[in-house]
Amino acid sequence: MSERAIGVFDSGVGGLTVLKEMLRLLPGEELVYLGDTARVPYGSKSPATVLRYALEAAAFLVEQRVKMLVVACNTASSVALDELEERFRLPVVGVIEPGARKAVAVTRSRRVGVIGTEGTIASGAYTRAIHALDPTIAVFSAPCPLFVPLAEEGWAEHSVALLTAREYLAPLMAKGIDTLVLGCTHYPLLKSTLRQVLGDEVALVDSAEETSRTVEAMLNGHRLPRQSDPGGPRFFVTDIPTRFVRVGGAFLGRDLNGVTQVSLD
Amino acid sequence: MSERAIGVFDSGVGGLTVLKEMLRLLPGEELVYLGDTARVPYGSKSPATVLRYALEAAAFLVEQRVKMLVVACNTASSVALDELEERFRLPVVGVIEPGARKAVAVTRSRRVGVIGTEGTIASGAYTRAIHALDPTIAVFSAPCPLFVPLAEEGWAEHSVALLTAREYLAPLMAKGIDTLVLGCTHYPLLKSTLRQVLGDEVALVDSAEETSRTVEAMLNGHRLPRQSDPGGPRFFVTDIPTRFVRVGGAFLGRDLNGVTQVSLD
Repeated sequence: MSERAIGVFDSGVGGLTVLKEMLRLLPGEELVYLGDTARVPYGSKSPATVLRYALEAAAFLVEQRVKMLVVACNTASSVALDELEERFRLPVVGVIEPGARKAVAVTRSRRVGVIGTEGTIASGAYTRAIHALDPTIAVFSAPCPLFVPLAEEGWAEHSVALLTAREYLAPLMAKGIDTLVLGCTHYPLLKSTLRQVLGDEVALVDSAEETSRTVEAMLNGHRLPRQSDPGGPRFFVTDIPTRFVRVGGAFLGRDLNGVTQVSLD
Repeated sequence: MSERAIGVFDSGVGGLTVLKEMLRLLPGEELVYLGDTARVPYGSKSPATVLRYALEAAAFLVEQRVKMLVVACNTASSVALDELEERFRLPVVGVIEPGARKAVAVTRSRRVGVIGTEGTIASGAYTRAIHALDPTIAVFSAPCPLFVPLAEEGWAEHSVALLTAREYLAPLMAKGIDTLVLGCTHYPLLKSTLRQVLGDEVALVDSAEETSRTVEAMLNGHRLPRQSDPGGPRFFVTDIPTRFVRVGGAFLGRDLNGVTQVSLD
């Protein structure tokens, strides 16, 4: 069982920021990544539709005989995690709880900001996860729908991104937050732009980093870490790979190879 | 036959700019609109995937017994029009050819710019359509992937949109274009921002307006115009209607009512 791969899925390229951290932290693990690029994005779609897509994506990875599922997409994590755990008899790690835990650990003012897609913010999943750990923390959240297309356009550090970030973050800064959770796997690309707007006093919580630490802990807890040489990650996408390969390189921090198109519906 | 409705489809809300012009120009016609909101957008997806989605959308409308299909989406028009005409025995109107014809009619410098999604621009469909009418016209095109999310965010007249438009249009303006085709059904919302960047000397071609004129001519040509009172348009979407209703109002220029969710896949 421990020799099996870990399955990671996202609506598209965003989850590659999580995969990047997993490659760094867990170099002995074999990784299989699925990007549902024919139906991307999930962030502006309804919980019912996102749940259906997430179940189909997970079923594909389970067919690949993975030992663990990582939902590397905040929108899918916010609506599908319970159902995935119930349906498939595997450990399932989402990106919400690790980010929430880190935010609770680092905040001093007990005023935490959360940014994400429309779907993630509307779900209230971060607020619930933070309050489950500490109900006295005030959580302020804001959907930032333009950050995903800006990151995919390669404009994460463009003046357009800076102007957009100023607009989106102003209401959160007015609330006196000292911690901001990047509640979307695309957002780590925007870190330096967000830092310019927020200054040095606000801690940025990157759920990609926190999630890979949770995966490591879960592997150890289930006695599932892998020992032998894994080879490179395998990639599957639901649209033709061209755009995924072109845009995804910036998210993974290296060239993408060996991408196969599959059908889920 | 002439009493039947006209079927209009798009990946989401963008085609409502075409529907709006059709409601104005063809008040006697019954209109059925389908937005494939569970799989939106089409503009960043591959031709093969967009073709599959377009065939499924058209099949749904044909089941509604429409007398004509209007492909109110530039990306779908650029890859699926021939296949749709072949598969379904109905008149099919796309948005590319009407815009191309208008551009050829209005340009004096014979230097025409075209903006659209990645998919539309990569297809070269506008360049082919313009050159089929006049091969001596120079066509310069640019994908503008951020315009769709900006329009859907309600930021079409925001300073972020202005800065984005300056960046996208600069290379086209440097080519000395005197005409710009808005090759995406979302872009009419950005007209005043585009006008600010382009000045008064560049003609804007709105394919929504041109397409509704083509539909009118086709109806007359096929002796299909309808005479009796049509009632309001009917709307179908593939995701839950909430976001379509909220965002679509700005595109249609009035409140959206009677939206039904359906499944295509």
